[in-house]
Amino acid sequence: MITGKNYLGNTLSSKGSKTYKTFNPQLNIENTHTFYEATSDEINEAVELAAFAFKSFRHTSGLQKAKFLNAIADEILALDDELISVYCSESGLPEGRAKGERGRTVFQLRSFAELVADGSWVDATIDTAVPDRQPLPKPDIRRMNIPLGPVVVFGASNFPLAYSTAGGDTASAFAAGCPVIVKSHPMHAGTGELVASAIVKAAEKTNMPKGVFSNLNSSGIEVGVQLVKHPDVKAVGFTGSIRGGRALLDRAAQREEPIPVFAEMGSINPVVMLPNALNNRANDLAKTFASSITLGTGQFCTNPGLIIGIKGTDLTHFISLLAEEILKIEPSCMLHPNIYGAFESNKARALAQAELTVVANYSTNVQENYARQAITTVEGKTFIANTTLHQEVFGPFSMVVQCENSDQMEAVISNLEGQLTGTLIADDEADKYSNIISALQNRVGRVIFNGAPTGVEVCPSMVHGGPYPASTDSRFTAVGVNSIKRWVRPFSYQDWPNNLLPDELKNSNPLEILRSVNNESTNQKIL
Amino acid sequence: MITGKNYLGNTLSSKGSKTYKTFNPQLNIENTHTFYEATSDEINEAVELAAFAFKSFRHTSGLQKAKFLNAIADEILALDDELISVYCSESGLPEGRAKGERGRTVFQLRSFAELVADGSWVDATIDTAVPDRQPLPKPDIRRMNIPLGPVVVFGASNFPLAYSTAGGDTASAFAAGCPVIVKSHPMHAGTGELVASAIVKAAEKTNMPKGVFSNLNSSGIEVGVQLVKHPDVKAVGFTGSIRGGRALLDRAAQREEPIPVFAEMGSINPVVMLPNALNNRANDLAKTFASSITLGTGQFCTNPGLIIGIKGTDLTHFISLLAEEILKIEPSCMLHPNIYGAFESNKARALAQAELTVVANYSTNVQENYARQAITTVEGKTFIANTTLHQEVFGPFSMVVQCENSDQMEAVISNLEGQLTGTLIADDEADKYSNIISALQNRVGRVIFNGAPTGVEVCPSMVHGGPYPASTDSRFTAVGVNSIKRWVRPFSYQDWPNNLLPDELKNSNPLEILRSVNNESTNQKIL
Repeated sequence: MITGKNYLGNTLSSKGSKTYKTFNPQLNIENTHTFYEATSDEINEAVELAAFAFKSFRHTSGLQKAKFLNAIADEILALDDELISVYCSESGLPEGRAKGERGRTVFQLRSFAELVADGSWVDATIDTAVPDRQPLPKPDIRRMNIPLGPVVVFGASNFPLAYSTAGGDTASAFAAGCPVIVKSHPMHAGTGELVASAIVKAAEKTNMPKGVFSNLNSSGIEVGVQLVKHPDVKAVGFTGSIRGGRALLDRAAQREEPIPVFAEMGSINPVVMLPNALNNRANDLAKTFASSITLGTGQFCTNPGLIIGIKGTDLTHFISLLAEEILKIEPSCMLHPNIYGAFESNKARALAQAELTVVANYSTNVQENYARQAITTVEGKTFIANTTLHQEVFGPFSMVVQCENSDQMEAVISNLEGQLTGTLIADDEADKYSNIISALQNRVGRVIFNGAPTGVEVCPSMVHGGPYPASTDSRFTAVGVNSIKRWVRPFSYQDWPNNLLPDELKNSNPLEILRSVNNESTNQKIL
Repeated sequence: MITGKNYLGNTLSSKGSKTYKTFNPQLNIENTHTFYEATSDEINEAVELAAFAFKSFRHTSGLQKAKFLNAIADEILALDDELISVYCSESGLPEGRAKGERGRTVFQLRSFAELVADGSWVDATIDTAVPDRQPLPKPDIRRMNIPLGPVVVFGASNFPLAYSTAGGDTASAFAAGCPVIVKSHPMHAGTGELVASAIVKAAEKTNMPKGVFSNLNSSGIEVGVQLVKHPDVKAVGFTGSIRGGRALLDRAAQREEPIPVFAEMGSINPVVMLPNALNNRANDLAKTFASSITLGTGQFCTNPGLIIGIKGTDLTHFISLLAEEILKIEPSCMLHPNIYGAFESNKARALAQAELTVVANYSTNVQENYARQAITTVEGKTFIANTTLHQEVFGPFSMVVQCENSDQMEAVISNLEGQLTGTLIADDEADKYSNIISALQNRVGRVIFNGAPTGVEVCPSMVHGGPYPASTDSRFTAVGVNSIKRWVRPFSYQDWPNNLLPDELKNSNPLEILRSVNNESTNQKIL
């Protein structure tokens, strides 16, 4: 049941007078529930509860954290149709997508449960003592990862479940042993509250400390700013726009104690199409990319916003096929009138540029908030010179850059800002384009061969991040179990008594985890 | 031979007119060589060379990088007496210390050589494809660490070799595949140039790309600031004061593309002495800590600047023994008149505080630049209330905090800023003080049991870092092979052709490294 209130730990609270409603973009009307924006006192209470909860939560065993994470997954599934229907009413996305995203969210939670139940993730590293070493004895030193402290999570508009309240940031922070305060996304505050209620139920059922989780409503930036400035907050996770992520990064950097901000932000995800591939399978490529560009109404952070090829009849042919294919696709609803409005104005600004040629522009009338896809094309030289063309148009939009040759393709890539992904489409020719591969590697977090960048597999080898502004710190990933590393720090015990060490570092290795002992990877005990 | 010039890659350069000399604090006179501060053009040239060198250096094999690192170690040893004598003349430190630090520097370089020659450090993680997975096929994804790009290193005044030109930051950056530009420390510019010449020789002998290393002289902050602002610089390593490190962190955060800064800064390294230990072995403890406080004239970043105990006759007895022991120690020379001057004024300010009781203050006349050690004591309540007492006095100085009880000791620790280390001195009593252990863990990067915090072992389990301001990012360490993680980012290949993958990720595992394949740790090939 949606109350519109904040969760301060397990307690519902609505002390403020500022309220707002969410919006159904399909029906183009406001939804019925009223949400109470968190007050300054409520924000402080949530953070103080989190700081207090951290004292015990950071010592919670992996098995207990696994129970908590699995219970969250169970409680989310138990929300059943109510969650799916609220999700659809607040996002304009279809039921199939809602269910798919719920599945992903549950899978993420269970993946982290598995990770911490096993326990090897703490990267236990042991160097045993050498008392007779000359000139000085070598001490016994043992290291493992420990949690940073309370984490503030800002969810994404475009993934109300998988990158929001109980999404990857929250799941990885809980797995690390960090309490979480979610700044709820105003566009799906109802979905957020339902998921928050599931987390609260799970926390109660598995005896987690009060304050391990809070959910704060807000329609503007004030709540988020106050959270990031609070001295008891120790890290921030964010998924969204470059402007929003950078503002939080700057605030965090200005604190007396600067804290890490991991923000996953914008990306245009360049796709390089090599000549043989264009010659052999322009038709298939046009179909694949028309579909990838419009997937989720173009609202995926891995949306292919830039296609790069070498000028010629094959590329010209591909462009016309892509235009034909994309115009066959029925427009679909965007998440919110604001996002729709931004898409329309960014698209209009792009289409108005004299340097661009419009090759597809869906022009039939559509429902309110439905995005009409467009494809443009531009010369390589022009693209390199005009960096405003490098900006993301969030929605079903892409630009084909026509280059003189492989060197110019390399220059186009090298002049891009950091990107989440880069794609290479090639037929028995990739080995001749090592300059392109190198250039892509230098600008992105993940390269894809002969596929579409949309679709981010949740697995240990995934990197969802990349050089700024794809993310604020390319040394971490937002997706996959390694995303836990954002919220932990290594910690060493020197000559510490065995009985006072955490189980992960005891001689007997009671958790039977994989450890590095004197440079050997082993799950054996130390004799 | 010292020329006083900058190394721009392998080329000596002195285009500027601003010069300076180093200082011999033992003789209290300037040294003879004149150093030419790098000009703006020279700085840009060094960075451009580094950016160009990165294009090939990042693809250099682990074995080649190992040869380079070992050659640097060899060339440093070949500098022989000249290096030791210049080191001593620029630091006031004795020959034994110079040789010990050279040994540590060489050991660090060889440790990184071993790490990259093996190659497992890239954390190769492979999830193989599942083409028939429902509802969607699972792609093949493979991940490994790749270097960030050119790194700027700011060396420390207090370790002219081990934390400077070819110290841990430079060695780890080279190991990662990052070119390095050193902003030479003005107090030991001659030592720096000699070591730089060793790196340049090693780079030439092992065919490293020109620009893989540059060494820039500067007496002020301008050269460093210009380096940190340069768009082709991708990360910064710093060891030094909080003020200096924070200034660089702030500059880096203000860039259009913010970059990571790892600064290891100040620390007062709290030592908690529990009652039984104080009762049983006050004499030994007084000797151990008198020696630790004055080690290297108190100029170690792990110097124990704060001793915490519970008020009573045992603590009073220990304080008088510590005073007695420390006054037996002959004062020694500080690194530079500026550092000596700062020590004397900080000490004088501390001693003048009405709330402090001075228990030892070496008052006999000494040579110029020789630091006279002092010990003070203060009530727990007073210490908590007056945060100016929490500031580091860099040099042979320590303060004993007398607490009412264990709760007040916990409060003293919890009110400290982040620290590199925390020490627990205990005799069969530590299990009764879990609150103290928890509080220490929350504030420091490494805890030591019944030892002195000075002495930082170079090994994989070492954490030399900690919560701000001990370091600017507690998720990394400055010492040990894991410090390489500061300069790398994970990178994923999706469905990439096996022949185009780097060796670390190929099916055949030609490097025979340890990899995680479908969640199993193995050095086997993939069939």
